[in-house]
Amino acid sequence: MFDPVEKLKEFVRHESVSTDPTYAAGMVGAKEFVANLLGSIGFEVEVVKTDLHPLILASRGGDSSWPHVIIYGHYDVQPADPLELWDTPPFEPEIRDGRIYGRGTADNKGPLMTHIAAVGSLLEKEPNLPLRITFMLEGEEEMGSPSFPKFLAQYKERLSEADLVFLSDTGIPSEDQVVITCGLRGVVLCEVQVTGSKRDLHSGLHGGVLRNPIQAVTELCASLHKPNGWVDIPGFYDDVLDVEQWEKDELKKLEGGAEAYRKFLGIAKFHTAEGFDPFEAIRFMPTLEFNGIGGGYQGAGSKTVIPSKAMVKISCRLVANQNPEKIRQLLHQTIRDRMPDDVTYEIIDDHSGVPYVVVPPDRTNTPADQSAVLADAFRAADAAVNDVFGKPPLYLREGGSVPIIADIKKVLGLDSVMFGLFLPEDNLHAPNESFKLSVMERGMQVCEQVLRRLANR
Amino acid sequence: MFDPVEKLKEFVRHESVSTDPTYAAGMVGAKEFVANLLGSIGFEVEVVKTDLHPLILASRGGDSSWPHVIIYGHYDVQPADPLELWDTPPFEPEIRDGRIYGRGTADNKGPLMTHIAAVGSLLEKEPNLPLRITFMLEGEEEMGSPSFPKFLAQYKERLSEADLVFLSDTGIPSEDQVVITCGLRGVVLCEVQVTGSKRDLHSGLHGGVLRNPIQAVTELCASLHKPNGWVDIPGFYDDVLDVEQWEKDELKKLEGGAEAYRKFLGIAKFHTAEGFDPFEAIRFMPTLEFNGIGGGYQGAGSKTVIPSKAMVKISCRLVANQNPEKIRQLLHQTIRDRMPDDVTYEIIDDHSGVPYVVVPPDRTNTPADQSAVLADAFRAADAAVNDVFGKPPLYLREGGSVPIIADIKKVLGLDSVMFGLFLPEDNLHAPNESFKLSVMERGMQVCEQVLRRLANR
Repeated sequence: MFDPVEKLKEFVRHESVSTDPTYAAGMVGAKEFVANLLGSIGFEVEVVKTDLHPLILASRGGDSSWPHVIIYGHYDVQPADPLELWDTPPFEPEIRDGRIYGRGTADNKGPLMTHIAAVGSLLEKEPNLPLRITFMLEGEEEMGSPSFPKFLAQYKERLSEADLVFLSDTGIPSEDQVVITCGLRGVVLCEVQVTGSKRDLHSGLHGGVLRNPIQAVTELCASLHKPNGWVDIPGFYDDVLDVEQWEKDELKKLEGGAEAYRKFLGIAKFHTAEGFDPFEAIRFMPTLEFNGIGGGYQGAGSKTVIPSKAMVKISCRLVANQNPEKIRQLLHQTIRDRMPDDVTYEIIDDHSGVPYVVVPPDRTNTPADQSAVLADAFRAADAAVNDVFGKPPLYLREGGSVPIIADIKKVLGLDSVMFGLFLPEDNLHAPNESFKLSVMERGMQVCEQVLRRLANR
Repeated sequence: MFDPVEKLKEFVRHESVSTDPTYAAGMVGAKEFVANLLGSIGFEVEVVKTDLHPLILASRGGDSSWPHVIIYGHYDVQPADPLELWDTPPFEPEIRDGRIYGRGTADNKGPLMTHIAAVGSLLEKEPNLPLRITFMLEGEEEMGSPSFPKFLAQYKERLSEADLVFLSDTGIPSEDQVVITCGLRGVVLCEVQVTGSKRDLHSGLHGGVLRNPIQAVTELCASLHKPNGWVDIPGFYDDVLDVEQWEKDELKKLEGGAEAYRKFLGIAKFHTAEGFDPFEAIRFMPTLEFNGIGGGYQGAGSKTVIPSKAMVKISCRLVANQNPEKIRQLLHQTIRDRMPDDVTYEIIDDHSGVPYVVVPPDRTNTPADQSAVLADAFRAADAAVNDVFGKPPLYLREGGSVPIIADIKKVLGLDSVMFGLFLPEDNLHAPNESFKLSVMERGMQVCEQVLRRLANR
């Protein structure tokens, strides 16, 4: 068997930023690296072309009576900027204090390597394991998986006869408390570009006769939240459902209080939608956030300019039963209603993803229509986590979005067992991203046990 | 005599951006260029060291009974970014369609060259002209002239025995209508930096528990204007005086209507403080503008981050009788009062400048205590403009700020005759800055006549 940590270092060195065309070589490198690795542990590898970054389908077939698990992951990573905030270069992985540092170590190259290494190790020990496994790895997750729905439609027949999807692209609150994620928020993204004058103007010579586009953008932004923290878009909460009691009970079991979380974030005070504590707000409430804003002079010193343009990037996170395209239309309508007529503007839509919820077995009075194999997979995961981490997992929703999970459910009819592996301090999407090596080691043991138990159900 | 246009090209090639330390060589080059040029037309040149960029004092002495004119100018320029919006590189001057293009061509290298060339030409023809002339040129105007007050205090004795200051660092509405500026707005600048979490956060995993610093910044910005266009800071307008009738009458003579101005700006509608038309608003009303805003991800595509920091650069333009430091304190107090306690913030103060008004002779019922030489200088300028441009000048306030004009009045007791030379389409502080060569040529003739008339008064 290969050394998982050495292979992860190699994986991270491929600068696979999917959103930025200047990283094309890194994308190709990461794809070839992971395809070769899966080939080396006996998988039949197929590279599926898309309009942009290819998917990898790697299969271990077998008797059609064997359970069939799809393992999902992605080989692309977030942009690394701001580069100056990294202690070591983002694409030169380094191990310090039991952690591997680098862009993508936690999201998703480390967790994906955990699964590949677990499968490699298991099949080396049990070459005749009665289990079919398909790795389904994409290169556009950090772009919102634009090619994924088309891919699912194309491969629907072949993939939908699987029993479930198994993956690690979600978080856990601490190494002492594993979480199996049973809900993900949806997302809808757009950018608003506002233009005032057709050129930058001297703020002395012309200041006082026109609306500065920065003013227009900030007035729009300020109108989108109420003082009580709720989003101020008419109809925004219409489809939000009440949360079931078992979910509230499960959340209460979460150890580590709000004060520790506040310190981790490094904020003076929480600011949640009124009526929800921070842990509830992340899981049960939708949000509207500004991911970026820009306009005018941002360098050192001053430049007394009224800029021609200003922009803001907006994302909404959505909870179960909310429809991203409906929310997008409400957001568009609100922008149209509130933008003054002395500026011009353009809304540039970006990707969206529907929210997802799966109900684990034995947890609800109104059980979903669930396959026996899926239920067994949840039970196998529960037992394996209990065995390796010394404590059963919690079944919680998470604030993040993995839009393809909902797509898989819709197109293939498959639910997902989301075994969380990254920690809050792993700094996903931020400088100094890292992945804890002891979590990787224990994660491999859990993955091995889950697959072995499923094979022998 | 040298060729003024060729010399201007040479001047522009020195990349003298005073606010950015990476342009230090350009600052030295521009300083030496202009010092040598003044030496070549017979001036005794002194380079006055400051904490940052030196001043140049260049003198032509003479009998103490001769009138003494100080000619002011600056050899530093604004930053040139955004570079991608320039049609030709900002520091490679190029002549197209009767204009010279390049950063600083209009502000202030072209107008300054106009004065130097006029003096050179005049003294070549009349070497015994009974007039003392001192060029007083600074290199920190675009930074707010931080060293200038100290310089004035140091050279007070020598400079205060002059009669007036003559300069061209203001605008005219068109080549058909010269304006002698008799009022300038003051200015006060600062930047507000807001911090939420101590690091960038994933907007899915943590969205909903904290106030995004972009939200805090936009809510602050949106609170600073009322819907009627007035600034929403308590006490902001307390010291604003009513405008005299002669000034309103003078403004009515300004040709070229609001519609042409609207088209020039390229805006859909004006947005002024209610009760003021655009031409009044620029001259008679203070403003609060956002010169830059930034935070989070501003690149292509999306990055679902809650940034740690966001910032906004704010400037206020002030009218006669407003005190910049009082306005600064009101702005600070308003920020303190309105910033929520779930973020931290810092206000970084930048420079300020007091507003200035001079009353030309024969225009008011309540004449200021004015020297006879100054009154003659205004009359000489009036006659020369009438002669060269075929129409007398208008005496108007301007929206821009030249804070040193008020400093000169305060420390030296000298008023300024501000002979405007740049046009609205010259794009000051913006990409594709240019200066019209026919204006330069006629400007030289006016400057020659003014100095000759003053010498022979």
